[in-house]
Amino acid sequence: MNSSHLGLQINAERFRANFDGLLRMRDGARRWFLETAKQAGLETRVDGAGNHSGLLRCGPSGAPVLLLGSHLDSVPHGGRFDGALGVTAALEVLQTVQDHGVPLNTHLEAIDFTDEEGHHVNFVGSLGLTGKLAPEHLQTPRGGRERFQDALRRAGLSEDSLFAAGRSAATLAGYLELHIEQGGLLAQREASIGIVTGIVGIRSFKVRFLGRADHAGTALMEHRLDAAQGASAFTLAVRETVMAEFPGCVATVGNMAFEPGVFNVVPRVVTVSAEFRADTEATLDEIEARLAQQASHAARRFALDLEIQPLDRTAPARMDDRVQEAYARACRTLGLRHTFLASGAGHDAQCLAPVCPTGMIFVPSVGGSSHSAREFTRWRDCVNGANVLLHAALTLTCI
Amino acid sequence: MNSSHLGLQINAERFRANFDGLLRMRDGARRWFLETAKQAGLETRVDGAGNHSGLLRCGPSGAPVLLLGSHLDSVPHGGRFDGALGVTAALEVLQTVQDHGVPLNTHLEAIDFTDEEGHHVNFVGSLGLTGKLAPEHLQTPRGGRERFQDALRRAGLSEDSLFAAGRSAATLAGYLELHIEQGGLLAQREASIGIVTGIVGIRSFKVRFLGRADHAGTALMEHRLDAAQGASAFTLAVRETVMAEFPGCVATVGNMAFEPGVFNVVPRVVTVSAEFRADTEATLDEIEARLAQQASHAARRFALDLEIQPLDRTAPARMDDRVQEAYARACRTLGLRHTFLASGAGHDAQCLAPVCPTGMIFVPSVGGSSHSAREFTRWRDCVNGANVLLHAALTLTCI
Repeated sequence: MNSSHLGLQINAERFRANFDGLLRMRDGARRWFLETAKQAGLETRVDGAGNHSGLLRCGPSGAPVLLLGSHLDSVPHGGRFDGALGVTAALEVLQTVQDHGVPLNTHLEAIDFTDEEGHHVNFVGSLGLTGKLAPEHLQTPRGGRERFQDALRRAGLSEDSLFAAGRSAATLAGYLELHIEQGGLLAQREASIGIVTGIVGIRSFKVRFLGRADHAGTALMEHRLDAAQGASAFTLAVRETVMAEFPGCVATVGNMAFEPGVFNVVPRVVTVSAEFRADTEATLDEIEARLAQQASHAARRFALDLEIQPLDRTAPARMDDRVQEAYARACRTLGLRHTFLASGAGHDAQCLAPVCPTGMIFVPSVGGSSHSAREFTRWRDCVNGANVLLHAALTLTCI
Repeated sequence: MNSSHLGLQINAERFRANFDGLLRMRDGARRWFLETAKQAGLETRVDGAGNHSGLLRCGPSGAPVLLLGSHLDSVPHGGRFDGALGVTAALEVLQTVQDHGVPLNTHLEAIDFTDEEGHHVNFVGSLGLTGKLAPEHLQTPRGGRERFQDALRRAGLSEDSLFAAGRSAATLAGYLELHIEQGGLLAQREASIGIVTGIVGIRSFKVRFLGRADHAGTALMEHRLDAAQGASAFTLAVRETVMAEFPGCVATVGNMAFEPGVFNVVPRVVTVSAEFRADTEATLDEIEARLAQQASHAARRFALDLEIQPLDRTAPARMDDRVQEAYARACRTLGLRHTFLASGAGHDAQCLAPVCPTGMIFVPSVGGSSHSAREFTRWRDCVNGANVLLHAALTLTCI
């Protein structure tokens, strides 16, 4: 980076005005994004996967583009910072570069990815852009096929347009994302910036314990084949095993479904919905094997049959070393304490990582709250995050 | 009993023809009952609680009536014997007494009670007949108020008619019921007839474990307040406590409801539906206290909050000693091996027991199956049960 830009800062007042403006427009967030980008003099674009972009042509003709962004969708009853912070920060970085006429060797594109939270198909926007979207991704949308098709139609999209949205890797200089932490490590380590080393892989599965429905009054305790007992023993074992044998990893039993599920019948079937996360495929394999052992142990203990149905598998993603180093250098330039950490949550960055140099930073979320109305990040930390994003982009692209 | 009746037997061919006839008519079972009773020369009656009766006026004018019966409703996918056997056996006993012109000191009434299985309001027919039905029984029908009101209307009944169906205790000489066992004790003890000593009381309740919803990827295991852990520990403890401390009693966790109940969120609330049964109020009190301790222990172990909501309470019912003795004498007369046992299932007899001398017998159910298409009782055992019912009725009412 040219040392003349070491003192560059984003325009914190404009950044705040944009962030507040977006909040007021949360229902029309994507329209707000295009209008704001246009007013800032950026070229706007909506691709076949519904991703919304504002482009700053600050590089040589024919140069690749460095993407900066996040997502504007949110979970029901979610907070104000998850996603929205990263998109407004990306816009601010482009405007700052534009204000100062900084010459770069790439163009810059602020991007809002479609359906990061997976209302229909998780990461459909970033998978579409990278050309990695496969027909099987669209087979089981969370809200069902019909609602997904309706949503595509309303957005002027189609399954064909999703598959046609892929860009060639040669056009992508990289992807940078600022996001809130959604955990408590930054506070614990008294750091202002978290540089993400990788995004955990996730495997989800259903375990069905199969016993026998019996009359809750006449079937003696010792003769029952009670599916609830196996499911409960397994649920306790999931937590104990991961805490004892895989420190830092997580596993969750998020639901149980009982059949027939009434007071006066011993449950015949209990289906447990579970997932676990780890930062390498090897650890994911080890956890999977141990949890299968625990399920089988719980079934044997109560003389139940067992069916394990593996569901989604998301691979862990390594963040690019050069991008991590650019973030670290930006922190040193700005005098901000940083730390390295893995992301336990999924992000669009995991879809970009296989095709271009990708890296994320986190800023502290008070109390670690996220996906909740309690979610809050101090404005000072938001500004720090946007400045680190700016300086990392300059480090990676300055002529 | 007049010794000239010691050799009396029911008409096994007619009994079989009626039982098979009823099976063919299962959807119109109650209409079949009235038509069959009428053809047999009995006076038929439908009371304000929807109970269907056939009356044999075999006693002196103004004499009370000895009720014999059971129920013709059935659980979904239920078997052929539960209830149906007792009603057809009651009809057969009346026809046998009629055939032989036996003079009794009471009239005999074969009765089919309304909604024994509790599709809408458990035992509404027998509670109505005894005058013990209270407005609170009608507040929360299982299928909802609207479906209950519709069902009443379709049957030509109303809440007013239910309350008006009560008979004075002075008109009731007693109540006898034959039912299949729904368990395996008779087979274990190699007995043909089980004489019921009492019907267990039932208490049901919901236990809510309250934790905190957290992101399944970013919330560290050791910081979670995971409601699933408390619910699972409690479910294991329910079984262990009742087996270790209350032999012969039963307790069941029939359902759990998770909130929000998705893969990627640590469950904030899990609501456990449970019930337990015992043959005395004192034992019910002890079990209730121990399970409350276990719930509180499970909540403390995982730092959860706890709410216990008691629901239905059905009091245990003692069967009448004189009626039990009449059944035992009938078994001796007929050369049938009998045993005494408590009923773990609820029956209309528990509603009759507080107002008139009441007693039940069980015949073996192969493999203990009930509330299932596997339910089966050997025809020889059905005939034995009907003959014991006949002889007990004669013992109690012969002049």
